[in-house]
Amino acid sequence: MTYDRFFSAALARLHQERRYRVFADLERIAGRFPRATWHSPDGPRPVVIWCSNDYLGMGQHPKVIGAMVETATRMGAGAGGTRNISGTNHPLVELERELADLHGKEAALVFTSGYVSNETGIPTIAGLLPDCVILSDAWNHNSMIEGVRRAGVDKKIWRHNDVAHLEELLAAEPPERPKLIVFEALYSMDGDVAPVKRICDLAERYGAMTYIDEVHSAGMYGPAGAGIAAREGALHRIDVVEGTLAKAFGGLGGYIAANADIIDAVRSYAAGFIFTTALPPAVCAAATAAIRHLKASQWERDRHQERAARVKVVLNSAGLPVMPSETHIVPVMMGDAETCKEASDLLLAEHGIYVQPINYPTVPRGTERLRITPTPYHDDALIDALAEALVDVWVRLGLPLRRHALAAE
Amino acid sequence: MTYDRFFSAALARLHQERRYRVFADLERIAGRFPRATWHSPDGPRPVVIWCSNDYLGMGQHPKVIGAMVETATRMGAGAGGTRNISGTNHPLVELERELADLHGKEAALVFTSGYVSNETGIPTIAGLLPDCVILSDAWNHNSMIEGVRRAGVDKKIWRHNDVAHLEELLAAEPPERPKLIVFEALYSMDGDVAPVKRICDLAERYGAMTYIDEVHSAGMYGPAGAGIAAREGALHRIDVVEGTLAKAFGGLGGYIAANADIIDAVRSYAAGFIFTTALPPAVCAAATAAIRHLKASQWERDRHQERAARVKVVLNSAGLPVMPSETHIVPVMMGDAETCKEASDLLLAEHGIYVQPINYPTVPRGTERLRITPTPYHDDALIDALAEALVDVWVRLGLPLRRHALAAE
Repeated sequence: MTYDRFFSAALARLHQERRYRVFADLERIAGRFPRATWHSPDGPRPVVIWCSNDYLGMGQHPKVIGAMVETATRMGAGAGGTRNISGTNHPLVELERELADLHGKEAALVFTSGYVSNETGIPTIAGLLPDCVILSDAWNHNSMIEGVRRAGVDKKIWRHNDVAHLEELLAAEPPERPKLIVFEALYSMDGDVAPVKRICDLAERYGAMTYIDEVHSAGMYGPAGAGIAAREGALHRIDVVEGTLAKAFGGLGGYIAANADIIDAVRSYAAGFIFTTALPPAVCAAATAAIRHLKASQWERDRHQERAARVKVVLNSAGLPVMPSETHIVPVMMGDAETCKEASDLLLAEHGIYVQPINYPTVPRGTERLRITPTPYHDDALIDALAEALVDVWVRLGLPLRRHALAAE
Repeated sequence: MTYDRFFSAALARLHQERRYRVFADLERIAGRFPRATWHSPDGPRPVVIWCSNDYLGMGQHPKVIGAMVETATRMGAGAGGTRNISGTNHPLVELERELADLHGKEAALVFTSGYVSNETGIPTIAGLLPDCVILSDAWNHNSMIEGVRRAGVDKKIWRHNDVAHLEELLAAEPPERPKLIVFEALYSMDGDVAPVKRICDLAERYGAMTYIDEVHSAGMYGPAGAGIAAREGALHRIDVVEGTLAKAFGGLGGYIAANADIIDAVRSYAAGFIFTTALPPAVCAAATAAIRHLKASQWERDRHQERAARVKVVLNSAGLPVMPSETHIVPVMMGDAETCKEASDLLLAEHGIYVQPINYPTVPRGTERLRITPTPYHDDALIDALAEALVDVWVRLGLPLRRHALAAE
């Protein structure tokens, strides 16, 4: 039998729907963030990255690079095994202590990615609670959806950030039934924030456990960068905090933080944790350096918010369809996959500006967008150049600019 | 509701079954492999690691550390995003080319771990084949079992390495039905090897796709370290090769290599790939350096086999229950979890030798073992010290030593 036709047909479907993805081959340049080299089909070209999830530029902070280089030099490149089979390296143990401290919990557990943290953490926790029901926000990230699905227990989806709906679902369950509420602190495609305190109120009223994903907020919000739950004064009311080392902390890996028994149970029962190689010591040391720096330094967080606010004002003034966002995420609505891809291609080819298209399945069809993530290192000149480039692309593609908005501001 | 009791009960069950795992906190020392520092409860102590999956010591090779350090210095610590969202870094693109070349395939795709490669690669491939049935070896690794389970398609388990049983199952399926055979090249707990050629014969006879896991063989077997399928002259008959960067190549990450359409389809459809941050440039560059070195250098492979053979002879001569193994894995049978844990604890505490216990769920209950992995850097003196330590532990625990074996050799 020839199997090739199945795979080529699958690819043809993507091309037909205009959502075939081409990955830009980028080379970051330490110390020049957000500038990078794009290895284009015609050779290397300088670009400015406007869509990095290295939100605070910590991946290029000298302390972080220094920790990585020093640790690799002293301890080598890899961990050498799973956590149980000789892979538990000292910098990883120190990182877990640092994360527990960051989120005010007894313990923490590091995974190879934030994706894996959710995908394996949620079902392991749910699996240890007899007859558990999971209550999951409708907009939860794919990794949480996979985690909930793999739990194989009853699940109820509550309308995004709708606490009345959450309460309705909680009230419908028997009081003695174990309940796990899973939600994100900050939803990364729209940039909106969960009503953390009200969710905690409901969890307490109905006796539910809480699992919060702080992937897009840890390091960036709250005192010492402890996240949105900390900013809302609700951290002690959250049972499990999940986060990543790959965004504000500029590296790789994910984690959960919770009380000692929860962490020990996940450590002991999660297949996706047990059977995988530990993070390299150098990657762990880099993350620890980033967390420690951001605990002490408020500059990155203040500048981050100020830059995001400025981008919103400048793009709005230019009449561009900036979606309302209360955080550092600046989504610009396109509405269909093809236009979104064309705009992104033009920005890169004509303006040396890299903002990749966000299409289905990352966002629902019809809400395709450019998702701009200003960092502390995007200066005024870069912001102005971005606005000019976007307006040029809008004009070329015949897209509407809000003229009245332009006049009003 | 208090949830604590569920987690403490789950932990109590493990303690009761004597399979609660304690991770040894190790600090590797670049250039002194397999020596390391154990951060014991009583302070740091020197140990010799005899169970590393850094099988060839490449995690500490100067070329590998050099590539990691240089790349981190030039490009920073992290990738900065998912593959689609600014995370496709140039060293990752180069690594994928290198892997495709290693396995003689058109393309390759890197994941954050070997675990994720199987867990997301298998269901994505199976999901694109209408009404696919998966034929899976009974001893496949947990990551493959999870991958098969997540595919949600029909599955048939064939008795480990039993090609007659595989043929029986293949023959029972309609000829036109898509079939995917998934198996490992080298089974890491027993050290036995799959009958790759005969499996390929059957795949051709019954029109099945083949997916081989070379996690414990790539880099170590075959010309240029291309793996067991290459050694058997069957690489061109294999559709998908899966492997890891975390064992012979000494780093972190996993991959699949196959024809361009298969790779492009997995790249485009696999949620566990799309929604996760890319490997850091420095980790990729380290892996590329290791692969390139092992393509050109046969020394590590030859010395690895010679060392493993010597360990088997020395331990057998001492009357220890070495399980037969045709590869570099040297399992020593213990048969129950408690004895296995005690032996491991004594080796570490009394002899500074670290071989962790392998208990359920990594191996079936009743086959608990010590799993010894000699590397090119375990010299004669270390091997003799290992044998003496094991004999001492055997005597202390009142375990039988094969006296006749001792006399015979």
